[in-house]
Amino acid sequence: MTEIKSLGQLAELVRARRFVTRIAVAVAEDAHTLDSLGRAVNEGFVRAVLIGDSQKIAALCTQEGLDPAAFEIIDQPDELAAAALAVQLVKSGQADSVMKGLLSTDKFLRAVMHKERGLLPAKTVMSHVCVLEIPRYHKMLFISDTAVLPFPDLDQKVAMINYCVAMARGFGIACPKVALITATDKVIGSIPNTLEYAQISRMAVRGQIKNCVIDGPLDFFLACDPSAGAIKGVQTPIAGDADILIFPNLECSNSFYKGLMLFAQGELAGLIQGTQQPVIVMSRSESTLSKYYSIALACKLAGDQ
Amino acid sequence: MTEIKSLGQLAELVRARRFVTRIAVAVAEDAHTLDSLGRAVNEGFVRAVLIGDSQKIAALCTQEGLDPAAFEIIDQPDELAAAALAVQLVKSGQADSVMKGLLSTDKFLRAVMHKERGLLPAKTVMSHVCVLEIPRYHKMLFISDTAVLPFPDLDQKVAMINYCVAMARGFGIACPKVALITATDKVIGSIPNTLEYAQISRMAVRGQIKNCVIDGPLDFFLACDPSAGAIKGVQTPIAGDADILIFPNLECSNSFYKGLMLFAQGELAGLIQGTQQPVIVMSRSESTLSKYYSIALACKLAGDQ
Repeated sequence: MTEIKSLGQLAELVRARRFVTRIAVAVAEDAHTLDSLGRAVNEGFVRAVLIGDSQKIAALCTQEGLDPAAFEIIDQPDELAAAALAVQLVKSGQADSVMKGLLSTDKFLRAVMHKERGLLPAKTVMSHVCVLEIPRYHKMLFISDTAVLPFPDLDQKVAMINYCVAMARGFGIACPKVALITATDKVIGSIPNTLEYAQISRMAVRGQIKNCVIDGPLDFFLACDPSAGAIKGVQTPIAGDADILIFPNLECSNSFYKGLMLFAQGELAGLIQGTQQPVIVMSRSESTLSKYYSIALACKLAGDQ
Repeated sequence: MTEIKSLGQLAELVRARRFVTRIAVAVAEDAHTLDSLGRAVNEGFVRAVLIGDSQKIAALCTQEGLDPAAFEIIDQPDELAAAALAVQLVKSGQADSVMKGLLSTDKFLRAVMHKERGLLPAKTVMSHVCVLEIPRYHKMLFISDTAVLPFPDLDQKVAMINYCVAMARGFGIACPKVALITATDKVIGSIPNTLEYAQISRMAVRGQIKNCVIDGPLDFFLACDPSAGAIKGVQTPIAGDADILIFPNLECSNSFYKGLMLFAQGELAGLIQGTQQPVIVMSRSESTLSKYYSIALACKLAGDQ
């Protein structure tokens, strides 16, 4: 497999495939969402079903210079009903992926997680992975959890790692390097995550987590700066070359990646993990380009299946 | 007062003053520490007392191209004794500031916090403030807590805010904008920090925290990206123009600022807060320039007194 080394390359891959992914969008009356979908539709790798207030959707299309006829539009002004319908289209095989529009992540995910009518298998951890491209880092960074689990416990952290590893392997990285991120490389009782990270590192030694190299606790410099190990006198197989960063909680991952988006010219592609089909949830404040890359990521995974 | 708008300007200010700050360094046998001190001594605003293994210190000076005669060197190879002596020099008025060298922050701070022989007044919150300069942000960012309090409680968060506000005002910002950072702008039970932030915002309304504008909970985009408020439909007096970011915990602040140091060409100056005299604690992996700026910040505060 050729390694995918940038988000541009990811988009190129899905454009080059013949596979057209059908995406159902819940509450689609959002300019940035329509812009990013419009691009994917024009490039031929997406067919989009827009569910929401059809008048608002049509008006926004005109405003954004998009042809409403490029989309299928279903009028359903009620946001909960729109979310339920979008999920149902995927559940019934009429769409391959579902995307959040202009409603809260909470409400949208409730439809995705619905016991009978949702897309999450029983006893499956739902999480979120972001693939970051940062000009000053020498490779892409897979980070988690960036949207769903506020304070993941041990089992959820292990699930997060497995999702990241699977995605990185899908990008052609056979044995990704996983850094368990906190404020220190020491195992100390006053920071409980460091205790959990010690447990996870040991689980990896015992072969309970496969297809990757894991080390933690680590601080961000040891994970991503090749010179940090020597300066700090810490030996780690990650050695400033991490592919995957696992964060202790949502507050931590959220401010981390947003800082890099705004100040380090980062772009990202993000996707819900654990669901039967790809689920796209983007923050309203994400760039149109990041939304487009997230669509491309969903299309890659839908096409891989 | 002229506003200090960059770390370079901060260093210029202390260079231009006649005041020479006497810094006692605990376990000084560290190349980066000696480099940054050497520059400050050469520029005439610091007199440094190096405490540690005098042979190692002399050898490192030679290695780094520094003249050992530029420093006063006291031989004390035991690191705890070196830390205690450095603090004692400040306590007795023979030095104005104390700086951590090659020993753990924990051990160093234990000397600083010692009940009888330390520098922390009784019932005072000890915390840490960093001043970040990030090329892509339009102003300097004061952030806390970046080194001392792993999980600050309500009172400690209020103390952190007051320290940041005092420091920002010392930089000439009369009424700094304080953003209470978490993953969301909503007050939600599943993220307890958002509840505390709601309490703090209310305390500010009641006049319990002065000389600043406070809003929270906020995510990082609402704090530092002027376009985020309109996109998210959130009204906040911070409006992407934050001077101060308060973080929920050390894991969060640590990965945030380290990400920006490595990927956004950031530099910083950091200082312990709450002590009778400026205390400098730098991570070993900080750049020599950031160490130099931290020394300059300590000198500014010592000179302000």
